Amino acid sequence: MSSRRPPIAGRYTAEELALAARNRGMPLEALRHELTPAGLHYLLVHFDIPVVDVNTWTLQINGRVEKPLTLGLQEITRLPAKTLRVTMECAGNGRAQVSPRYPSVPWLEEGVSTADWTGVPLSALLERTALKKTVKEIVFHGADRGFDAGVEHDFARSLALEHALREEVLLAYEMNGTPLPPQHGAPLRLVVPRWYGMASVKWLRSIEAIDRPFEGLQQARSYHFRRHPGEKGEPCTLMRVNSLLAPPGIPDFYTRKRVVEAGTVEIVGRAWSGAAPIARVEFGLSGVWHEAQLDGAAPFCWQGWRARWQARPGEYELSCRAIDHAGNRQPLEPPWDLSGFGNNGVQRIAVTVRA
Amino acid sequence: MSSRRPPIAGRYTAEELALAARNRGMPLEALRHELTPAGLHYLLVHFDIPVVDVNTWTLQINGRVEKPLTLGLQEITRLPAKTLRVTMECAGNGRAQVSPRYPSVPWLEEGVSTADWTGVPLSALLERTALKKTVKEIVFHGADRGFDAGVEHDFARSLALEHALREEVLLAYEMNGTPLPPQHGAPLRLVVPRWYGMASVKWLRSIEAIDRPFEGLQQARSYHFRRHPGEKGEPCTLMRVNSLLAPPGIPDFYTRKRVVEAGTVEIVGRAWSGAAPIARVEFGLSGVWHEAQLDGAAPFCWQGWRARWQARPGEYELSCRAIDHAGNRQPLEPPWDLSGFGNNGVQRIAVTVRA
Repeated sequence: MSSRRPPIAGRYTAEELALAARNRGMPLEALRHELTPAGLHYLLVHFDIPVVDVNTWTLQINGRVEKPLTLGLQEITRLPAKTLRVTMECAGNGRAQVSPRYPSVPWLEEGVSTADWTGVPLSALLERTALKKTVKEIVFHGADRGFDAGVEHDFARSLALEHALREEVLLAYEMNGTPLPPQHGAPLRLVVPRWYGMASVKWLRSIEAIDRPFEGLQQARSYHFRRHPGEKGEPCTLMRVNSLLAPPGIPDFYTRKRVVEAGTVEIVGRAWSGAAPIARVEFGLSGVWHEAQLDGAAPFCWQGWRARWQARPGEYELSCRAIDHAGNRQPLEPPWDLSGFGNNGVQRIAVTVRA
Repeated sequence: MSSRRPPIAGRYTAEELALAARNRGMPLEALRHELTPAGLHYLLVHFDIPVVDVNTWTLQINGRVEKPLTLGLQEITRLPAKTLRVTMECAGNGRAQVSPRYPSVPWLEEGVSTADWTGVPLSALLERTALKKTVKEIVFHGADRGFDAGVEHDFARSLALEHALREEVLLAYEMNGTPLPPQHGAPLRLVVPRWYGMASVKWLRSIEAIDRPFEGLQQARSYHFRRHPGEKGEPCTLMRVNSLLAPPGIPDFYTRKRVVEAGTVEIVGRAWSGAAPIARVEFGLSGVWHEAQLDGAAPFCWQGWRARWQARPGEYELSCRAIDHAGNRQPLEPPWDLSGFGNNGVQRIAVTVRA
């Protein structure tokens, strides 16, 4: 197998469709909920959902540590826990809107959701292992195994030590107050708030402290922003500023085009950014931008917003764009990336208002 | 809008992709579980998931009845309940494998799942309304509204009275022991075991007894088997005999092609039929059929089966086919249908066995 697949333009392949059918997006009407209802959270599984027997499962923490650890799930759940409400987005969200596009999961815009994750801060466990002074990165090894770009591997990613030690990085065993379901990483997964989803490794088997950069495929080759083939590129890390609105009115089954009754329409949506809190959201009505009203904010969770629209009969294009406190603003068009990563171009929804 | 959309061949359209991203299939590795894990059950939502306030929600039972009823959820959950384990399949499952295909949800083969549904037998409530003697059908009106084939409507379907009164037809308010999630019809849905999923109307608002055939779009026009345009066709009712196997080994991320280690491989799968219990399942190895071993059976639930394969290095095509006690057998190729309904052609999985 070649290491990169040739790009695709136009209609979608059978392989892309099979990935879309397996890897589910969040239906956009679920944007009405701050906490995505259980079972509607987006899902990306690189290989198969592994079969893990929780009774025999253990987590190994090893590598450049003075005191390697082997822990069962009960030992982990007995430790002081915290719960964080975290918005997670797939780095490839929006890929299907870029042309030509990289052959992978063809997310349109629905690869984002929010859940309550309960678990143990990673830093608490790393402390108990007494990391050696030479440690540079922490590697997270999952139980899901397969091939990508011709390389057989278990899914694995690393974090630089300073990121791994941040207090919001969790080893989570509950999602929305119930044990992790199999597809979300049971019995234990990493949750890295503010980062794209690939950092939050599922089905953890071991955590390894290393004194050099991790060279695994999913770290060193995949998940890089690249404009041209052959570039080394920049790693995907924090989620770019982005926003979506819940399409108003009622849809046509096949085209998903919307019909709205004339009158006052409350538009609601969510905005998020890994770099900084959301500063402003604008609601776009056929190219004219209006300031939206922000709801209350929480640190790792998307920011609700709303706008009132006096809808009069006609054809409209609705959109939204967010600006964060670091000054990042969504572009009007999808930014070019060879693998379709980080597409935060504004959403566009065609609406007919009828009398 | 025209009443039928023109057929498509070849690669998939943006509309088909958007429907695949919203309407999630069950990843085939979940076939290892008799009860599909929560959140992995397949999902087909014609319009949007409606917002229903359970505090003000009521169910109306009216039409040709002596005693119309209005019930809140608490009144319904206080009635004697039963729980059934039910396999449900979308009538359009397999549509994406038919060529040319009807523009709709492009299921490959993953539009099938099993859940435990808890609720009140419909017959118990209908009895309390004292149906008039002239009643022929019971209509189920959902809260989900939109357009299909140019017609604006709430999703609604009917059952002939004799089907509606069957003891296994439930008004369900729990799925897998917890309240229905929004996407599966909260707060109350119909569950019609042995039928394709369109019969199990979600987000019920009212139940209407009528003395004539129901002429709603989803009953009288959609969900019919038709070989040629303009035919009246035969309504989709009971699920056709069908079976799937859980792909063994590990996948390639993009192509989903499988690699298996040489040696003894246990193949597991499920088979189901609305008409009768499963009599036999055959496991196909590159066109040679072997009798599979059946697990224990339950009335409305798919039938587990297993086969042992002494896998030697090489390239193989795995498949399976089921035969029910009514003598129905899966065809080797997808049966032709204009709308891609009822495709029970055998599944085919390409596998490389390595030494």
